[in-house]
Amino acid sequence: MTATPAEFEARLRQIGAERYHDKHPFHHLLHSGGCTPDQVRAWVINRFYYQASIPMKDAAFMSRVEDPALRRAWRSRIEDHDGTDANEGGIARWLRLADAVGLDRDYVASKRGVLPATRFAVDAYVRFVRDKTLLEAVAASLTELFAPKIHAARIEGLLANYDFADDSSLSYFRNRLNEAPKDVAFGLAWVLDHADTAEKQDAAAAALVFKTDVLWSQLDALHAAYVTPARIPPGAWQPDTHLIAARSRAS
Amino acid sequence: MTATPAEFEARLRQIGAERYHDKHPFHHLLHSGGCTPDQVRAWVINRFYYQASIPMKDAAFMSRVEDPALRRAWRSRIEDHDGTDANEGGIARWLRLADAVGLDRDYVASKRGVLPATRFAVDAYVRFVRDKTLLEAVAASLTELFAPKIHAARIEGLLANYDFADDSSLSYFRNRLNEAPKDVAFGLAWVLDHADTAEKQDAAAAALVFKTDVLWSQLDALHAAYVTPARIPPGAWQPDTHLIAARSRAS
Repeated sequence: MTATPAEFEARLRQIGAERYHDKHPFHHLLHSGGCTPDQVRAWVINRFYYQASIPMKDAAFMSRVEDPALRRAWRSRIEDHDGTDANEGGIARWLRLADAVGLDRDYVASKRGVLPATRFAVDAYVRFVRDKTLLEAVAASLTELFAPKIHAARIEGLLANYDFADDSSLSYFRNRLNEAPKDVAFGLAWVLDHADTAEKQDAAAAALVFKTDVLWSQLDALHAAYVTPARIPPGAWQPDTHLIAARSRAS
Repeated sequence: MTATPAEFEARLRQIGAERYHDKHPFHHLLHSGGCTPDQVRAWVINRFYYQASIPMKDAAFMSRVEDPALRRAWRSRIEDHDGTDANEGGIARWLRLADAVGLDRDYVASKRGVLPATRFAVDAYVRFVRDKTLLEAVAASLTELFAPKIHAARIEGLLANYDFADDSSLSYFRNRLNEAPKDVAFGLAWVLDHADTAEKQDAAAAALVFKTDVLWSQLDALHAAYVTPARIPPGAWQPDTHLIAARSRAS
């Protein structure tokens, strides 16, 4: 039976309550100050792969949208990440974080040393958006519903617990606090409007579950590789490598 | 500079020596009898996803091959896994292993409960073979060069250490001991023949590295989820569920 929009929204929010990666132990470790400098660096390196792939995901989506109005509404996501004349963009902001934790930003930008499991998960998301229905693609983006809370907790936790944290290094998260609500308000309204049968609602909910898996898997891989007992896969970033002189800032 | 075929083969074998998943701690645990029944079951459930995807990978490859002779040579891989009138095939044999460790074979075959990281890694392999050059696709299959040793060690280790192990439950591995050498002899000769520039040799070597990442990531995910300290992601198989009455065999 088709749920009302309000019921369906509640179903989507319940998925976040149960499966969003704010519940992963790595985030507790990170936000509470329990990460070593190298664990923070490993997170910065791997999460960059996700950041850098998001505009490709959004371009894949737009490449399949025939409605100019929808493409126009979506385009600001790419601008937010890749930047404009007036806005450096999220990817550049993330590299400021890399600087702040003492990593060689060229190494981070090269994406070498990213965990294979990170690549597999993130690439699966880009491909999902390329291959699935537009409804599923938009629904998968709705993890942004749950992002502001984690970004606010992250800013507070990093500022309280790590010397590298300041307005410049955390500017990525502060900007997302402004950008994400606009994106997700549009995406949520679009999904509630277009998921007008029980079958479509199930598909949209499954897409959101898929996306929570993509996020959770990245933290699982990070935790397994770099948190005790660390087991770094062949070829992935090794602690104490690719650092810049200012590495002591990441403490 | 282009390496000679013998030099290039040595380079490929070195990749296996450094990165093949026989070096992963999960395999040591499994083959030495250190796995609990539920850890063996988690391995059976997740590895099934890989087995079940391999014929799709081979079909994706054949869908891009214009040479009937190459398609004909490749076709036996699909037959080996999916079966023929005279041969039940590797997927059915794997489900016999599922029976033997007390799992509900319908649950295993449904692929529900597979770790998201397993899906992402295996799907990345299928997509790689669909998207990359034929040379890279064949080169990625060359992890079979290193498989007979691990299959022999597995048969010996499982027989010595687990009650569920017998000729029937381990028939998948015994058959692969016969099938894999034929496949890999063809694949290796094809790669050595076609990788006739330094650039192609680099691409083929990178494809083999990619494939070792696919295999390693699956064991990493399994280890992180089900070996101490276990951290099972949302939605993945939970120990003590989906068992059949004969579960006590998996001891």
